[in-house]
Amino acid sequence: MPEATHLSLPPGIVDRIVQAALDEDGAADDVTTRGVVDPRQWGRGVFVAKDAGVIAGLPVAAAAMCALDDAVSFDALVDDGARVSAGEELAEVEGLMASLLVAERVALNFLQRLSGIATITREYVDAVAGTAARILDTRKTTPGIRHLERYAVRAGGGFNHRFNLASGVLIKDNHIAAARARGLTDVADVVALARAAAPHTMRIEVEVTGIEQLTEALQGGADVILLDNMPVDQIRACVAAVAGRALVEASGGVTLENVRAIAESGVNFISVGRLTHSAPALDISLEIGGA
Amino acid sequence: MPEATHLSLPPGIVDRIVQAALDEDGAADDVTTRGVVDPRQWGRGVFVAKDAGVIAGLPVAAAAMCALDDAVSFDALVDDGARVSAGEELAEVEGLMASLLVAERVALNFLQRLSGIATITREYVDAVAGTAARILDTRKTTPGIRHLERYAVRAGGGFNHRFNLASGVLIKDNHIAAARARGLTDVADVVALARAAAPHTMRIEVEVTGIEQLTEALQGGADVILLDNMPVDQIRACVAAVAGRALVEASGGVTLENVRAIAESGVNFISVGRLTHSAPALDISLEIGGA
Amino acid sequence: MPEATHLSLPPGIVDRIVQAALDEDGAADDVTTRGVVDPRQWGRGVFVAKDAGVIAGLPVAAAAMCALDDAVSFDALVDDGARVSAGEELAEVEGLMASLLVAERVALNFLQRLSGIATITREYVDAVAGTAARILDTRKTTPGIRHLERYAVRAGGGFNHRFNLASGVLIKDNHIAAARARGLTDVADVVALARAAAPHTMRIEVEVTGIEQLTEALQGGADVILLDNMPVDQIRACVAAVAGRALVEASGGVTLENVRAIAESGVNFISVGRLTHSAPALDISLEIGGA
Amino acid sequence: MPEATHLSLPPGIVDRIVQAALDEDGAADDVTTRGVVDPRQWGRGVFVAKDAGVIAGLPVAAAAMCALDDAVSFDALVDDGARVSAGEELAEVEGLMASLLVAERVALNFLQRLSGIATITREYVDAVAGTAARILDTRKTTPGIRHLERYAVRAGGGFNHRFNLASGVLIKDNHIAAARARGLTDVADVVALARAAAPHTMRIEVEVTGIEQLTEALQGGADVILLDNMPVDQIRACVAAVAGRALVEASGGVTLENVRAIAESGVNFISVGRLTHSAPALDISLEIGGA
Amino acid sequence: MPEATHLSLPPGIVDRIVQAALDEDGAADDVTTRGVVDPRQWGRGVFVAKDAGVIAGLPVAAAAMCALDDAVSFDALVDDGARVSAGEELAEVEGLMASLLVAERVALNFLQRLSGIATITREYVDAVAGTAARILDTRKTTPGIRHLERYAVRAGGGFNHRFNLASGVLIKDNHIAAARARGLTDVADVVALARAAAPHTMRIEVEVTGIEQLTEALQGGADVILLDNMPVDQIRACVAAVAGRALVEASGGVTLENVRAIAESGVNFISVGRLTHSAPALDISLEIGGA
Amino acid sequence: MPEATHLSLPPGIVDRIVQAALDEDGAADDVTTRGVVDPRQWGRGVFVAKDAGVIAGLPVAAAAMCALDDAVSFDALVDDGARVSAGEELAEVEGLMASLLVAERVALNFLQRLSGIATITREYVDAVAGTAARILDTRKTTPGIRHLERYAVRAGGGFNHRFNLASGVLIKDNHIAAARARGLTDVADVVALARAAAPHTMRIEVEVTGIEQLTEALQGGADVILLDNMPVDQIRACVAAVAGRALVEASGGVTLENVRAIAESGVNFISVGRLTHSAPALDISLEIGGA
Repeated sequence: MPEATHLSLPPGIVDRIVQAALDEDGAADDVTTRGVVDPRQWGRGVFVAKDAGVIAGLPVAAAAMCALDDAVSFDALVDDGARVSAGEELAEVEGLMASLLVAERVALNFLQRLSGIATITREYVDAVAGTAARILDTRKTTPGIRHLERYAVRAGGGFNHRFNLASGVLIKDNHIAAARARGLTDVADVVALARAAAPHTMRIEVEVTGIEQLTEALQGGADVILLDNMPVDQIRACVAAVAGRALVEASGGVTLENVRAIAESGVNFISVGRLTHSAPALDISLEIGGA
Repeated sequence: MPEATHLSLPPGIVDRIVQAALDEDGAADDVTTRGVVDPRQWGRGVFVAKDAGVIAGLPVAAAAMCALDDAVSFDALVDDGARVSAGEELAEVEGLMASLLVAERVALNFLQRLSGIATITREYVDAVAGTAARILDTRKTTPGIRHLERYAVRAGGGFNHRFNLASGVLIKDNHIAAARARGLTDVADVVALARAAAPHTMRIEVEVTGIEQLTEALQGGADVILLDNMPVDQIRACVAAVAGRALVEASGGVTLENVRAIAESGVNFISVGRLTHSAPALDISLEIGGA
Repeated sequence: MPEATHLSLPPGIVDRIVQAALDEDGAADDVTTRGVVDPRQWGRGVFVAKDAGVIAGLPVAAAAMCALDDAVSFDALVDDGARVSAGEELAEVEGLMASLLVAERVALNFLQRLSGIATITREYVDAVAGTAARILDTRKTTPGIRHLERYAVRAGGGFNHRFNLASGVLIKDNHIAAARARGLTDVADVVALARAAAPHTMRIEVEVTGIEQLTEALQGGADVILLDNMPVDQIRACVAAVAGRALVEASGGVTLENVRAIAESGVNFISVGRLTHSAPALDISLEIGGA
Repeated sequence: MPEATHLSLPPGIVDRIVQAALDEDGAADDVTTRGVVDPRQWGRGVFVAKDAGVIAGLPVAAAAMCALDDAVSFDALVDDGARVSAGEELAEVEGLMASLLVAERVALNFLQRLSGIATITREYVDAVAGTAARILDTRKTTPGIRHLERYAVRAGGGFNHRFNLASGVLIKDNHIAAARARGLTDVADVVALARAAAPHTMRIEVEVTGIEQLTEALQGGADVILLDNMPVDQIRACVAAVAGRALVEASGGVTLENVRAIAESGVNFISVGRLTHSAPALDISLEIGGA
Repeated sequence: MPEATHLSLPPGIVDRIVQAALDEDGAADDVTTRGVVDPRQWGRGVFVAKDAGVIAGLPVAAAAMCALDDAVSFDALVDDGARVSAGEELAEVEGLMASLLVAERVALNFLQRLSGIATITREYVDAVAGTAARILDTRKTTPGIRHLERYAVRAGGGFNHRFNLASGVLIKDNHIAAARARGLTDVADVVALARAAAPHTMRIEVEVTGIEQLTEALQGGADVILLDNMPVDQIRACVAAVAGRALVEASGGVTLENVRAIAESGVNFISVGRLTHSAPALDISLEIGGA
Repeated sequence: MPEATHLSLPPGIVDRIVQAALDEDGAADDVTTRGVVDPRQWGRGVFVAKDAGVIAGLPVAAAAMCALDDAVSFDALVDDGARVSAGEELAEVEGLMASLLVAERVALNFLQRLSGIATITREYVDAVAGTAARILDTRKTTPGIRHLERYAVRAGGGFNHRFNLASGVLIKDNHIAAARARGLTDVADVVALARAAAPHTMRIEVEVTGIEQLTEALQGGADVILLDNMPVDQIRACVAAVAGRALVEASGGVTLENVRAIAESGVNFISVGRLTHSAPALDISLEIGGA
């Protein structure tokens, strides 16, 4: 079955984000390149990983390199999702020297960030290898580039949670607090309200603080239980209490140290905010020469 | 003299970025809140730091909370740039419960990322305290929110480098390689080309690999010398070679461990890419209750 | 429990759609009003239903009337979702006469179309009253105003299907044909593929042509079965075959004549494309006078 | 003389509307297709009319099918404006299966709606065949796609009224009411005001309630008289009263039953709001197979 | 009757143009003001005419001053259309000093250009005072701000030609050349084609080179004859040939020296491209002080 | 060294400005061309200068001609920056006749305005030939097309000042007034404030009224001194007082009569607002024929 399916990235989205980034970077008025580079000069460059990691974002880098000048060619030497070592060449670009220099930083900014996300995701995915648990992202993404960051998570072997507020039901602690504030003290009633309003194509996921809420949520018909910030022991107890009547997701306080223990507790999903909100960039550079 | 001047953030930019983020998050169709929350219910919430750090982005969080419902009130309890401890309250919000819940994640996404940047910036700034060196950001920012990330750097006590390609001249190694590829082997000639084309309001900064290029750059009239990825010894030698004839910036491979040594070498500026490309988010949450 | 929750309409979306409509209608350069109306003249008007029906879109009409001149006041006399008779007054507007005249057509275009949708939806909803079946919309909406049209369906007592391709999984006949074309002949395998890729917050809905595919879909773990364009007898047989193991949606060829029989077959949902793609507008006018 | 001239549709407008529709439909994140379809799989499809009617919108459907993937080919088998019978093939598409499936609904939404408009327009046009009257559209179009809907009217053999407020002068009952409210009781004066302000390239059209206003309008120099919602007898009397001194348009309450009688009264134009505000969609489907 | 009607300017259009201009001018990152001005400092300023002229654009300047900070107040001391002398005060602004300084240039750029247009328009209008001829603008406007420039023409006492290609029919020499190239040698046939396709709300205007084409155009039913670049003698002959059967517009080569002679030839309209394409800016400054 | 480097114009910017201009001009609904021109007819045209001048904007005109129909070919016969005589052919276009006619006015509007700017710039540049002074533009450009107008200045042999508020520091009289209003009476202090906040890549330029402020500015470390609106004698005295310690720019009241005298005073730069705010358009036409 098709391995790479889940990696597809919509070109329209990429083009718009890339164009906005080039605008932000003043690509229309690069005073250095305009002064220093002969506009007829041809050039070549190679993207090189300076550290080991997992690559994501080559189509975005390609779009950035070509957005202002479609005579630029970009040839990827590895696929997104590939593990690379320090010094490995990732892609070759060729075109007008000025075009390469103007787009370099934007292309690298995307490639470094997305590869950073793929790299850390892969570490979490490897840490739970052999268990049934999937590593998920969250909505804690960088505003404006969620599509790209979710793609990077997939490139690292992770899976995506709901895209946004419109594409999934997740009753969080604050929703339950809001419900309680108007007299709805039983979580089952809250689940029923969500079910009544949500499109029937959506499951209902509920965040619970302990066994009591968990029981109410199941009684209300929750499809997925979210255990937030629980120690592994408590997670294990909750999984037992669910007893297969719902899917279980763990979240909060997940680290490379404890993720395997959480996975072995029997949860179905482990969502990790830091995949997107705190992944360090992977060091990548563009080395340019004449042609 | 006005302390907070450098912290100002243009409201138009903020509003547009925030609106795009709310769109991305599907705020127009929050299926959970629509189902679970009474649309007439009033609510309150408190933003609380879960870790110690430096805060940045409260006006952005405020804009996010109020963008969809201008009846929401947002009262900051600390100023951007403040050092806070874990558990400290940062701001209070009040308004329709549904409005608070819909905007929560977007507000937090901005506040956590910007505070993460301010926090790490402050660590670098403190590390060079007492030296003449300034900590600078770079263009290695998240595409789309450079204005905000530069603001966060200032909130952490850092300074901004040029905003983009249009607002400063920086002849980098790749520009010099491009010039050499067409026969311009003397860096002084490259500097002259840049000077001829750039607006006279800009200084000319040149990245050099060693004393030879440095000498050529000074002969060409460079105003600022950029030393990239040099060991401290070499930086010291270069500063001596410049002998006050230009400003000196060090960049590349800067860590909290070596930044003070670099600062004490006599450079004027130390630019640190990781302030923006690899700062972990500061943990902050919104705790909501009835009103 | 809150009755009107499901009717909320995001103001940001409304404002942007309304502004685009006013632009399209040349509101910036109304050559008639500019010539004929004293710019200082005050005016009043009343929106009046010319036919009986169900009203939807008063907040949109209000936004249109006020978008160019926030000194215009708009007072709704009924709520969206109300049944009105011919001649009934729906809302009063007051403000500069020129402002009322410039915005009139755009306000009416929205109000008439959305009320048309609410009216026909209400007819279908009433036709299945007392059964367990819900009337659903589809993605067969007018490009650009899907948010508004789904709102109108809710105002008419209907429910919403998935918003778009990103917010729900629906394996249609064409997906199954595509799968078969590459050798996947068992629908169960197709369901498994969808499950593996989709966010865990989504159910998997599958369109089937008969009992055989239905059985495969259930074996693959489908949560919802879509019966497209089946006669009532066949629908009844399929509901029996499902035997409660999944939800069942009927679609295609649904009319006011056959909808009750379909509902009584025991399906959970009946989706009706014509609610949005073929609803005739409800006749409404704005009657303007001096003030 | 060129038959098809009036059918041209500006590609820039089409592309923007189509892109917005694909965004609205979540084409960037089609969770079903991403899961189920092999991204390298090739596919073909045929657009087939399920009912008889007049086709309009093939270039829009083509733009939708190709917007996300310019390797998709779209070959129209009939021209816009063609009468087709149920079962007739309209166009063939070929390309990556995933690209076809993602764009299918948006392409159909446009094609069905525009063909619905062309179909009903053609019925009105045929009903007045042999008379001098032209069938016109109105400004009662769907917000956002007026360009397309006017095109569909032309494809059905109808003609366009003014595009919007900026491109024609039409003094309606509400303008006359506004004028009266400030003491301008003679319609001739209102016409004079409009003439003074309007570009000289525009005619002045005036809506009148009866012979008295009609006489005043002619005295004021009106070029076109609009008779709104009059019985055929009264229309006939008005046409006689105009006696060729102006063009005459009838509007309001026009049906397939009475349109020929109205046309035979001698009016030049009959504008029909329902062409655009109440046309039912023409049933069209895309039948996809492997390639 | 309302004198100022024709001067109204749509606020939505103004706001968008002004916002784009502030973006272009880097108002989000004014490095000078950020450094030099205390963000809490209050300031005042006065817009002063440095030359005599006619003012246009005060609402645009107001929008520019307030766009980034709605606490800025702007009080116009004269109305658009007013003749002012050198040294006359036009408006007062008050608000945060930083807000005034950031917006100053953009406000002045609009005010100077629009007042320049109003000033030169007034000269032409005065030059034909007492004749029946109206001074018109053309489509030779600055791309992006046609609405504003047409407004400035009105402020100077001129009238507007058609807004754009969509709002009026004007068969120019190049259209006639195109028609001839496909065998349509009689201008009357070209007029007939235009009439058949154009909305009935539009007159048909035709540019002619001499009496022969003029005669054909009238035979074809042209409503308006455009005489391009003719000497006054020829204009006079053409007016005589038209003999009241159509309106007549003169255009091309119109100067302050010959405009009165052209007007006295009996033409109805004189359109002058230089009103918008070559009007020198009126010198205006903003004088700022403390508060 | 590359002569034409400084003339490059970013295609992305051009395309967006051109598209907006075509929208503004109603190119989507050209009622004349739609009626009169056979949509299959091919045509050719030649852009011809009607007056002598310097050409700028051919790539913009090309973009306008091709934006709606990429089958149009545009071949420039001269380069931007070329001096042309009246009657000289500038470019040939070929394509569908309708495409040429729809885009003609927008292409000409850009070409005429930009060539007007290049022409007047060339006059100023020629007037100071042989001196060391450069002719600069200012921020007094037309809102929305500053990139294009700066390009035209370069095409005329001039140089660009800072692009906008974000790309250069210029302390103007109003900044000094603002500083004085809060007690900062020494210009040196104001310079120091600017230096502290500005990116280190920028020089600090200060506008002074006379020798006293000039001395303070130099003490504060100003890199560039701006002399505004001074008579030549005073300029000469100021240049002497600066004595090479800073660059000197003269501005204000510069005319073709006095510009050489100013240049000979020894200033480095002379900025001339009228290059962009008051340049008359160069007369250019498009002459169309069949093909």
